[in-house]
This record gives sequence, C-alpha cells and structure tokens, in this order.
Amino acid sequence: MRKIEHIGIAVKNINEANDLYSQLLGTEPYKSETVASENVTTSFFRTGPNKIELIASTTPDGVIAKYIEKKGEGLHHIAFDVDDIRAEMKRLKDQGFRLLNDEPKRGADNKLICFVHPKNAHGVLIELCQEIKE
Amino acid sequence: MRKIEHIGIAVKNINEANDLYSQLLGTEPYKSETVASENVTTSFFRTGPNKIELIASTTPDGVIAKYIEKKGEGLHHIAFDVDDIRAEMKRLKDQGFRLLNDEPKRGADNKLICFVHPKNAHGVLIELCQEIKE
Repeated sequence: MRKIEHIGIAVKNINEANDLYSQLLGTEPYKSETVASENVTTSFFRTGPNKIELIASTTPDGVIAKYIEKKGEGLHHIAFDVDDIRAEMKRLKDQGFRLLNDEPKRGADNKLICFVHPKNAHGVLIELCQEIKE
Repeated sequence: MRKIEHIGIAVKNINEANDLYSQLLGTEPYKSETVASENVTTSFFRTGPNKIELIASTTPDGVIAKYIEKKGEGLHHIAFDVDDIRAEMKRLKDQGFRLLNDEPKRGADNKLICFVHPKNAHGVLIELCQEIKE
C-alpha cells in the first residue's frame, strides 16, 4: 500500500455533483469516464497528490444505485495505489482478509483493481489499484 | 484546499480497529489521542502523504456512537488541509455552503477545524483543517 490513490464518492446526479465539487475544491474534473462493465459513470478531480472520484450509476439497478438506496449518497471507498496488485492480494488473503474478486479486474482510469470486503475493514470498502503500463 | 490531510473512519472498538488497520496498511498507528471535548478517542496512521484517522466514541451517546448506530461503522469524513481556515470558511460561505461551526474549533492532531454540512456535499462530511503553529 503506497498511498491513497483516490477516494470514491457515490452520487445520484454526476452533473450536479461535478458542479458542486468544482466549487468546493476550486478545480474542475480533469477526466470523465464511463465503465460500461460496472454500469457507472465517473469524474476525477485532482487534489494535491490524490484524486477524488465521483461515481454515479448508469442504470437504476446498478451497484451504485443500490448502494445509494441503502446508505444514501456519500463516501463509498478508499483506493490504495499498489505496485504489484497480485502480491498485495496474496499478502492480504494470507492475513485472512476476504477479497471481492479472485483476479484483478479492469477499472476506470487505466487501473487493475481489486476490492477487500468491507466486513474485514470496519465497514470500509477498500480498493487496491495498480496502474496498467502499456 | 491544498490536499487531503486525512480520512476519518468511525469504528466501535479502537483497539480492534488498530490491529486490523495495522495489518491492512502494514504500519502501526503513530499517534493516539483522546479529544475530551468531542468524546472521542483517535488513532492516526501515515499512508504516504496522507493520514488515516480511526475514531471511536468514549461515551455511549457521543456523536460517533450515534453515527455508528445510524449508519454503521465506516468512512466518516474527508479532511482537507488549508493554509488559512478563516479565509476558506469565508470562500465557502460566500458560495452558499453551510458550515457546522461559525468559528474554527480545536480538533485532534494540533489542528483548527471546521466542518461543512454533508447536505452541501452529496452526503460527504468535509472537514477543513489548519495546523496550529505555536
């Protein structure tokens, strides 16, 4: 775990949230990206060495729509930058952490990602992410 | 807003959470602090340029105990480092953001702090914090 890569925030309306977070942070999103496989659309803001990712569902029954229905809009996950996602997944598994996927999958922002179950982390959804170098 | 200073995580049992986050992050907390005025006890971990703050209530009816009762354990707030907290409070107020305190108050980790109402930020509790230089 090198550092916090980004904080994910679940929102209902990506355009409204983009406007509000632009005001709050004093900077515009530098990237927007739809991840069809996850049914989400995302926006990224730079805040110093980290990013903030706004995430909205593109379908009424997507995972983010369901999250908001249950918990409301708000902080959704913390993503940590790792050098070697498979090694970090193994390290955590060996320590008894439960991972939500057995193999890294492709996420937004050119990353390989894996999630740790929030039950293992006092209710926090932790993402590991490794930049894809091509 | 210069950068994310820390992420606050609400937990029930600070000792259990310290053990688990030490395993997860691969580092021990570098500081523990009780803030009597807020009825909380806290632990801080360094993760690269940011910190993670675990927060537990010291009383059954404290603000963190009530938060966990309503929402469960998990991500509680994002704190942004600011150079001049009063100037940043004024900037946000002028833009229509609602602040939870009119004057900065003293928080953990030698900081002046102020919170922005989560209704103004799509459900996210935002903290501004300025290091106290003495």
